[in-house]
Amino acid sequence: MEKYLRLITDKMKSRNWDAFLVPRSDMFSGEEVPENEERLKFISNFSGSAGYAIISAKSKLKSVIFSDGRYQLQLKKEVNSKNFYISNGGFKEVCLFLNKNKNILKKVVIDPWLLTLSEYEFLQNIMKETKISFEFIKKNIIDEVWLNKPYKTENEIFKLPFKFTGETVSSKINRLTKFIQDNNYDFYILFNPTGLAWLLNIRGRDLKHTPISRSFCIVSKLRDIHIFGNNKSFPKILKKEKDIHFYNFEYLSTFLENSKNKNFLIDAKTLPMKVYNFLVNNNLNYKSISCPVDKFKTKKNLRELRGFKNAHLKDGLAILNLLFWFEKNVHLKNLTEIEVSKKLFEIRSLEKSFVCESFSTISAFADNGAIIHYKVNKSSNKKINKDGLYLIDTGAHYLEGTTDTTRTLLVGKAETEMIDNYTLVLKGHIAIASAVFPNNTKGRDIDALGRIALWSKGKDYAHGTGHGVGSVLSVHEGPISISKTSECFIESGMVISNEPGYYKNGKYGIRIENLEVVSKRKFKNLEDSFLEFKNLTRVPLELKLINKKMLTEFEIRWVNEYHQKVFKDLSRFLKTDNEELFNFLKRKTASI
Amino acid sequence: MEKYLRLITDKMKSRNWDAFLVPRSDMFSGEEVPENEERLKFISNFSGSAGYAIISAKSKLKSVIFSDGRYQLQLKKEVNSKNFYISNGGFKEVCLFLNKNKNILKKVVIDPWLLTLSEYEFLQNIMKETKISFEFIKKNIIDEVWLNKPYKTENEIFKLPFKFTGETVSSKINRLTKFIQDNNYDFYILFNPTGLAWLLNIRGRDLKHTPISRSFCIVSKLRDIHIFGNNKSFPKILKKEKDIHFYNFEYLSTFLENSKNKNFLIDAKTLPMKVYNFLVNNNLNYKSISCPVDKFKTKKNLRELRGFKNAHLKDGLAILNLLFWFEKNVHLKNLTEIEVSKKLFEIRSLEKSFVCESFSTISAFADNGAIIHYKVNKSSNKKINKDGLYLIDTGAHYLEGTTDTTRTLLVGKAETEMIDNYTLVLKGHIAIASAVFPNNTKGRDIDALGRIALWSKGKDYAHGTGHGVGSVLSVHEGPISISKTSECFIESGMVISNEPGYYKNGKYGIRIENLEVVSKRKFKNLEDSFLEFKNLTRVPLELKLINKKMLTEFEIRWVNEYHQKVFKDLSRFLKTDNEELFNFLKRKTASI
Repeated sequence: MEKYLRLITDKMKSRNWDAFLVPRSDMFSGEEVPENEERLKFISNFSGSAGYAIISAKSKLKSVIFSDGRYQLQLKKEVNSKNFYISNGGFKEVCLFLNKNKNILKKVVIDPWLLTLSEYEFLQNIMKETKISFEFIKKNIIDEVWLNKPYKTENEIFKLPFKFTGETVSSKINRLTKFIQDNNYDFYILFNPTGLAWLLNIRGRDLKHTPISRSFCIVSKLRDIHIFGNNKSFPKILKKEKDIHFYNFEYLSTFLENSKNKNFLIDAKTLPMKVYNFLVNNNLNYKSISCPVDKFKTKKNLRELRGFKNAHLKDGLAILNLLFWFEKNVHLKNLTEIEVSKKLFEIRSLEKSFVCESFSTISAFADNGAIIHYKVNKSSNKKINKDGLYLIDTGAHYLEGTTDTTRTLLVGKAETEMIDNYTLVLKGHIAIASAVFPNNTKGRDIDALGRIALWSKGKDYAHGTGHGVGSVLSVHEGPISISKTSECFIESGMVISNEPGYYKNGKYGIRIENLEVVSKRKFKNLEDSFLEFKNLTRVPLELKLINKKMLTEFEIRWVNEYHQKVFKDLSRFLKTDNEELFNFLKRKTASI
Repeated sequence: MEKYLRLITDKMKSRNWDAFLVPRSDMFSGEEVPENEERLKFISNFSGSAGYAIISAKSKLKSVIFSDGRYQLQLKKEVNSKNFYISNGGFKEVCLFLNKNKNILKKVVIDPWLLTLSEYEFLQNIMKETKISFEFIKKNIIDEVWLNKPYKTENEIFKLPFKFTGETVSSKINRLTKFIQDNNYDFYILFNPTGLAWLLNIRGRDLKHTPISRSFCIVSKLRDIHIFGNNKSFPKILKKEKDIHFYNFEYLSTFLENSKNKNFLIDAKTLPMKVYNFLVNNNLNYKSISCPVDKFKTKKNLRELRGFKNAHLKDGLAILNLLFWFEKNVHLKNLTEIEVSKKLFEIRSLEKSFVCESFSTISAFADNGAIIHYKVNKSSNKKINKDGLYLIDTGAHYLEGTTDTTRTLLVGKAETEMIDNYTLVLKGHIAIASAVFPNNTKGRDIDALGRIALWSKGKDYAHGTGHGVGSVLSVHEGPISISKTSECFIESGMVISNEPGYYKNGKYGIRIENLEVVSKRKFKNLEDSFLEFKNLTRVPLELKLINKKMLTEFEIRWVNEYHQKVFKDLSRFLKTDNEELFNFLKRKTASI
C-alpha cells in the first residue's frame, strides 16, 4: 500500500500536482462499487461504503481520509495513520479542507469520471473566492499504478418477465419520453444503471448485491434509446424491443459531438463532470432536473407489490429455517457469526428465484451488534457461546422482489435491561407500522414516532428510521426515507423499511426491521384520503425479549396479530412431515 | 367605503399610479395593529389579522384582497366583492399576482414604512425579469383620505420590576452589545417594540392585547441606547438607566445622516424599506442577521418562569370561577357568547396584577366553534341554549406572566361522536404534554405526536400544534412553534402552547390548550441530556367528554394526575366559606 502511495505521489510531484481527490464511489455514484474500482480501499485499506481521500504530494501536509460518523471506528482500525490523517466528514468537509489548505494545495487534480456535477458546483461554491486551480486528469493516477486489478469479466444480463415488472418497456419509455417532451428538450441522459435496468426490465450481475449492468443510456424525445455499455449481450437480450441502439461506452463523446444544436436534460446529482465537460465543449444546451425515473420506480405497481409479497414469503421461510437451525445448534456447536450468515446463504440458494443477497449480511453477536454497520470478517468473527443478544440484518433479491429484515435474538439468558430496551424498540416499530397519516406527509414528519418510546427513557438511535427499497434493484433506494431530514413525500406504492434500534456501545445492539408498503386508507364518510403501512415481512419477533407490561393493549394486539399473520402465511408452505419445524413456528408465533 | 376607494383611485389616476399595495400590518409588522392604522380594514372592511390588498386604478383590472386559508370565510362575509376580487394567499401570492398582471399594472406604489426589506427582496426576486417599476411614496394614500381617524392618545408606559423580569436592563444591554461587538459592527437597529420592551424592562399600552409601546431603538457597541418614540414618558420611566438617549420618531433620518462611516446590523424580516432606504441613501454599511433579542427573550429565566406559574394560578382561579358561573347560569339565563367573554373579563379585572387580555377571547358555541379564528361580534353572537359544544380560547397578561388556555365544554347532552373526537384530541394533547425528546429536536419533529391519534381515524386539524408565548409581550412569540414547518430548535426555558383540535364544519369545534415550559430532563447513568414539557395551565378538562375506554393506562393516569395538580394548586386559594366552589372544583377534577 505504502509502495503504491509513494508511486502516486512521485508521479504527482513530477507533474507539479499538489493534491489528488479520491472518492470511494465509481462513475455511477452508487452505494456499491465493483472490486476493481475500489480505489479508495486500494490506497488506504478502508472498506466502508462512503468516503474520500485527498492525497497530498506536499511534504508539509499529510494526506487525509474522510468518512462519516458511522465509520470512525472502522477508519481507525483499517487505515494506517502514518499515511493518512483520519477525519470525520463527507464531501462538505473535503471542500472545507481544500479551502483551508489552499495556500499549500494550489493545484488539485480530479478524475472527472468520479465527481458529479452537483459535487463540483458545491466545491466551486465553497472555493469561489480562492485562486486554487482544479485540473481534470485524463487517466486516474491510481489506475496507472494498480496493475494487478481484479479481472473484469463479462457479466450476465437477464430479462425480468412482465409478471414481475408489471409494466412493458414500451410503456416505461412512453412515460419517460413524455417527460422529455413536456420539458421541450431533445434528450435525457439517464446516467444511472438502476434507472436503465428499471426502464428496460433487465437486470445484470456486475455487482455483488445490486443486480444491475453498469451502463447508462440517452433517451430521445422521439423514443430512441441509446445504450452505452460494453456488455455484448445487450442486443441479444433486447432484440424484441424497437428503437434501441447500442454503443461502446467510449462512443459517448462522438455521440455528443454529433448532436449539434440538440439540448439535454441531465440530473446533476449523478452526472459525472466528464460527461458535463463533453456537453460544454460541444456547446450543447442542458438543464438539470431531478431524475424522473427515480420518481417512477419509487412507486411500485400491483405486480411488483405482489412480487414483493411472494419474495417475503420465500425469505420468511428461509429465515424461519435459519432460526430453527440456529436454536438447535447455537449451544451445541459454538456457532460463529460467519457460520450463521453462510448457513442463511445456503438456505436461500435452494430457492430457484433467488438472485443474490441484497447486501452483505450483518451477523453480529454481543458488542459487535452495537456497531451499526458491522461487517463480519475473519478477525472480528465472534463465537456465539455465551449469554447475549445476536443481531442479524439480512436481505435478498428474488426475481419477484427484494427483502431486508433485521431480528435480534436472545442467546441464553437476558438481562432485564435488554428486555426493556428491546420492548422500547418494539414500541417504536409498532408506532411506525400502525401509523395512519395524511397524503401530504414527508418522511421527516413521522420519524419521531419510531423514537418517542426510547426518548421517554433518555435513549435514541443514531440512524434513520427507514429507507426506500428498490424492486430487485438497490436495497437502499431514494428518494424516500424516514429520517429527520427527509423532505420527500410518502406516497402509496412505495416500499420502505421500518427499523428503529438501540445500541449500547461495547455491549449489544438491538434492531427490529420489517419492510412496509405504503397503501391508501379510506375512511367512511370522510373525504380526505389517508395513507398507512402494510407489512411485508413474515419473520417472528423474539418473544423472550418482550416485556408485556410495558406494552399497551393496542401494542399487545399488534404483536399477536402480526404473529398470527406470520404463522398463517408461513405454515401453509411447511411440509406436513416436518412437524418439528411446524411446532417451532407455532412456538415462535405464540400469543403473548 | 366605496367613496374612499373612489377617492383613492382618483388620486392614483391623477398621478399615473396603476396599483397601490396595502398590507394589513403597520410599520412594526406585528400581529396586532392599533385601530388608527387598520388601513386594510378601512378600505375593505376585512378585520382579519393578516392580509394584503392591491388597489388597482386600471379599469380593466379589479382590485384584489388576499388572506390565508383561515380567513377565506371571513373575507367573503366582510368584503364587498364588487370592490375586491377575493383571493387565497399571502405575500407570495401578492407578488405572483403583480407579476402576472405586469402588462396592466406597470407602476406600483408602496408605502415604504409598511413593507419590510425581506418582503421587498422577495418581491424583487419574483419580478426580476420584468420592467415593472415600484415607487415608494412619501405619504400613504389611505391616510390622505382617512380624515376622521380614531384619536391617538399618549398611552401609559410602566416598568416591570426585577422580581418579574429576573434580569436587569444593564445585563440585557450587555448581552446585546456583546453580540454587536462579536459581529464587529457599530450599531444594531432593534426595530421591534416587543424587543425594546424586553430590553428595557418596560411595558406600554399602545395596543389592546400586546403590552408594548410602539417604539424602537438603535443600540451601539458602546452600550448607548437611542430610543425613537413619541411617548413623552420615556425619560421619566427610564431615568435611572444610564446611556439612554431619547428622540422623536422623526429624528431617525437625521440620526442616520449623522452616522457617516458607521455600520449597522439589521434584521431584514422587520426592517421597513423606509429605514433601509435611509441606510442606502447615506451610504451606510449594513448586514442582516436574525434578531438576537428574539433569541434572548424566547428562553425565560427562573423569575419569569415563576411569574408564569403564578399568572397561571391566578388565571386558573379566574377560569374556575367562570366555569362555575357558566354551569349555574347557562341553562337558566340563555347566556350568549359575548356575555361569557365579558364575564371572564370582569372576573379577571378583580385581580390587581391583571394587565389586559392577551388576545380577543374566542367564545364560540356549536358551529361557531368550527371557525378556528372566530371572533364574536353582535351579528354572529349565539345563544348557548341547546345541546352542543362550547369552545373558549382565552388568555391574559398579568404583571407576572401571560396565559393562553382553550377548553371545550359540553352543554346539555353529547353525541357519541363528540366524545370520541374530544378523546382523540385529548390523546394528542397528552402525547405532546408527556413527550421527552433529545436536545437537538426542532418544533417540526414532534408535531405529528399531537395528530397521530386523530390521523388513525382519518382526522386532522388545519393549524399548528403550538406556538411560543412571550413574557407579558406577544402571546404568539417567535421563533419557536410546533408545526410541520418549524425549523427552530426547542430549548429549555421556552414557553410553548400545546393545542391540538378537531373541527367539524358547520357543527362544532374542539380544542384543548395548555401552556408548557420546556425543561431539562436528566436520566440516571445516561450522558445525553433530554428535554420535556412541564405544564403551566391549571384548568379542569371536560370529564363528560372523555371516553375512558379509548385511553391507555398511561393516558388515564396522566388525566388523573393532571386533575390532582389542578385541584391541589387551586383549592388552597379558595376561601373556606365558599364550599360550593370548592365542591365544584372537586367534582371537575375527580378521577376517571
